[in-house]
Amino acid sequence: MDEIAIRKRFGIRVRQIRLSRDWSQEELAANAGLDRTYIGSVERGERNPGLVNIVRLATVLEVPVAELFRVDAEGERSPKRGSG
Amino acid sequence: MDEIAIRKRFGIRVRQIRLSRDWSQEELAANAGLDRTYIGSVERGERNPGLVNIVRLATVLEVPVAELFRVDAEGERSPKRGSG
Repeated sequence: MDEIAIRKRFGIRVRQIRLSRDWSQEELAANAGLDRTYIGSVERGERNPGLVNIVRLATVLEVPVAELFRVDAEGERSPKRGSG
Repeated sequence: MDEIAIRKRFGIRVRQIRLSRDWSQEELAANAGLDRTYIGSVERGERNPGLVNIVRLATVLEVPVAELFRVDAEGERSPKRGSG
């Protein structure tokens, strides 16, 4: 898997889990002691976050680090659409 | 968990899994397209490896990324000592 795909996939998972907590980027940033713009760029796959921040994000999101690397989690915990 | 502990724990896991493959640092480095000194410093917890290299190491070691973050794996697959 290429670098961009790795970063993008990770960013998507951070975003999914953050939204499942109903947290804004600001809230996640504040809880993790990171900058809001940093969270935004991680979620967009523009960054290559380091080990320490990866563990910090997982800790604050209260998920095992493995959850940030799950690939089969598309749409997890998102509200059902068009169920009516 | 503090930064140093995070880095050290990760390094220990990389080392454990590398040794379970009977690979030298040179072999792991070559397979992952990384430098031998880089692998050494990661294993000693001196580095904060980035997401892309973390995924690369897991891929080459043929383990899910989660395995690199397991905490209950002390001594896994290591030969038994003093069993006689």
